[in-house]
Amino acid sequence: MNERETKSNGKARVAILGYGTVGISVAKALQMLGLPSIELSQIFNRDVARKQALPEARFAGFDTVWTGSVDEALGSDATIVVELIGGVDPARDWIRRALTAGKSVVTANKQLIAYHGVELLALAEANGVQLLYGAAVAGGVPVIPGIMQGQSGDRITRISGLLNGTCNYILSRMEAGDRYADVLADAQRLGYAESDPTADVGGFDARAKLCILSRVAMHVELNPDEVGTQTIADVDAVDFAYARELGCTIRQVSRAQREGGGMYARVGPMLVPRESPIAWSHGTQNMVVTTGTLGGDVVFSGHGAGGDATAVAVVSDIVAAAQGSRPVSLPVIVSAIAGALAQVDANIDSLLQRPGYPKHRLAFVVTTEPCRTSTIERAVTEMAKLDCMLARPLALQRLVVDDKDEETA
Amino acid sequence: MNERETKSNGKARVAILGYGTVGISVAKALQMLGLPSIELSQIFNRDVARKQALPEARFAGFDTVWTGSVDEALGSDATIVVELIGGVDPARDWIRRALTAGKSVVTANKQLIAYHGVELLALAEANGVQLLYGAAVAGGVPVIPGIMQGQSGDRITRISGLLNGTCNYILSRMEAGDRYADVLADAQRLGYAESDPTADVGGFDARAKLCILSRVAMHVELNPDEVGTQTIADVDAVDFAYARELGCTIRQVSRAQREGGGMYARVGPMLVPRESPIAWSHGTQNMVVTTGTLGGDVVFSGHGAGGDATAVAVVSDIVAAAQGSRPVSLPVIVSAIAGALAQVDANIDSLLQRPGYPKHRLAFVVTTEPCRTSTIERAVTEMAKLDCMLARPLALQRLVVDDKDEETA
Repeated sequence: MNERETKSNGKARVAILGYGTVGISVAKALQMLGLPSIELSQIFNRDVARKQALPEARFAGFDTVWTGSVDEALGSDATIVVELIGGVDPARDWIRRALTAGKSVVTANKQLIAYHGVELLALAEANGVQLLYGAAVAGGVPVIPGIMQGQSGDRITRISGLLNGTCNYILSRMEAGDRYADVLADAQRLGYAESDPTADVGGFDARAKLCILSRVAMHVELNPDEVGTQTIADVDAVDFAYARELGCTIRQVSRAQREGGGMYARVGPMLVPRESPIAWSHGTQNMVVTTGTLGGDVVFSGHGAGGDATAVAVVSDIVAAAQGSRPVSLPVIVSAIAGALAQVDANIDSLLQRPGYPKHRLAFVVTTEPCRTSTIERAVTEMAKLDCMLARPLALQRLVVDDKDEETA
Repeated sequence: MNERETKSNGKARVAILGYGTVGISVAKALQMLGLPSIELSQIFNRDVARKQALPEARFAGFDTVWTGSVDEALGSDATIVVELIGGVDPARDWIRRALTAGKSVVTANKQLIAYHGVELLALAEANGVQLLYGAAVAGGVPVIPGIMQGQSGDRITRISGLLNGTCNYILSRMEAGDRYADVLADAQRLGYAESDPTADVGGFDARAKLCILSRVAMHVELNPDEVGTQTIADVDAVDFAYARELGCTIRQVSRAQREGGGMYARVGPMLVPRESPIAWSHGTQNMVVTTGTLGGDVVFSGHGAGGDATAVAVVSDIVAAAQGSRPVSLPVIVSAIAGALAQVDANIDSLLQRPGYPKHRLAFVVTTEPCRTSTIERAVTEMAKLDCMLARPLALQRLVVDDKDEETA
């Protein structure tokens, strides 16, 4: 279907960067599915000899090239690069190199996509390839493809989610009477929680996912650092007792919703009425509820973490990239604009891009962090010079009347 | 992105066939979203003057052409035809004509897609256009796009669903103590149930949807007529009392699952444990639970019916068609094979097409209804003559050991 994605033998060639838990599951899934159109051509890992000696090395194909050199993997004839290293650096650079080399990229990297998704999506667009990240949110639950392909016909106004399985595990066990410290210790023993659980319990993992969902569902760019978080570590057994009296339970809820012209976004423990779908979720499950103007509430739920569940999302994206299927999304080409703003030391606060404009005439709104009017005037002048601008931007000041603690954009 | 889909003004042009509840909601959604790349160019309805006089006619654009002639709508320069007439005839013929004329088709027609989906998908494929039917199952809940785009990396082995909102409304009210006859009367008054409720309560609506989901999720063609059904009309208040004692409730459940080399599929009232997600659903909600080898259970839930919810799925498919995004699906080109089998009076029972084969070398299995060995031999000879066959088919007999009542393929 997409000739660029395939070689003369008709196969898409996949390079996996990182053969850890998820990488192994991806290789296993590819072997299980036996997709004749997809070939695992390269596996990169540091200390590759050790990985090759693992029993899980058997999931690779006979012809798979193992390498300890990322340059070799990125320079290979792979048509799809699967980034499973995690973290912002060096993943960001590797993905940039892959996209620039005309390879599509599939990643599960939530922090990278939350902070640098716009830039990387623009780079993919400019190179005529795809950047797919369905695995970055809710693992095996197809929330991102479901929203992109199945809810573009609605105007989504709110997202509520249980986006961190560790927190859900801890809080649903506390609901059953266990103490925070004991449950956290169990979670660490079972591999659900890191030895430093801050990213999970503090909400930093969930807020990255919330920012990605806001982009996908509401076409809004949120800066993760500006999304308020509250730790679940302060929740006590007694809080569950009171919650019960109120007909509620407690969950770490991630919420983003349109409010006036802006966005409200927050991650933290919340009282959840027992009849809400949010309260149904137990154990390490993830759940996302989208609220649409037309369709009302839609619930997605399932296993959000673990190698196998995450591999479902990664391999689904590999299949999509191999078939040349592009997600139904709006091109967001804003790196030039971000550059123009950076030149005058103005920082982008949020970006709003309503769906459906023809590619050659995109309309959008950029909000900046508070700055001088003269800075904005210079920014507008810089932006007007850009080839991609068809009209001089209109600058408007914004009257802030919202509670400052709750307002994020 | 897809030049064929767009006219020189860069817009996709949409013709709606049928301006009833869903058609009106589709026009309203298009107006609300204000997608500049999509234009509502034609509305066809019998007695079109009456429709034009309705207040809901305002959702059409100024330039929308209203017509009472389907020939005019199908002969127009619309690039996407939206079929909202329902029923097999004449919808089947109209969709065939639209696809043959090189127009993509979006439909919410579950009976047509369940019975004739393979033929129509092959026709779309042959004409290089799309046939999208996300609205045929679970209305605004993006089950079909979620499975197609987000679960192609898993091997789904079972589908369980609440696919009929009317039955869910009736049974969840009976759970609360109301009597079947009273609830049915209420449902009819509220417009949830038809005056003849057989299609809903008898399971015939749900089984069409189950067959569509089996195709999408498990790449299996089931004949709806061979899926066993049991009516919910026989469920009594006392059954709920006993169910409660067993820790269960009762719902109309649609199930399809792989069993051995075949498929088990059935629609009817079932005891559902209270801790199952299936038991969470109340009112007219729909729910689908897919069970994957890797990802485990994934739940999709939300409003399955009503004009607005269904319009979300229809408009999402319109957006996908307009952007030229093709669903991640395997081409199923079997109309030629079906023709060859029909020549010798053998009937296709099921068709199994594993994902991932390159387009130019598809492998598949066809099972037939019981017939003579000589019939199969002639069928194989006919099939071997087809241009599309790269190898002579292998015919194998099948030892049936399953319970005949439960076996459907």
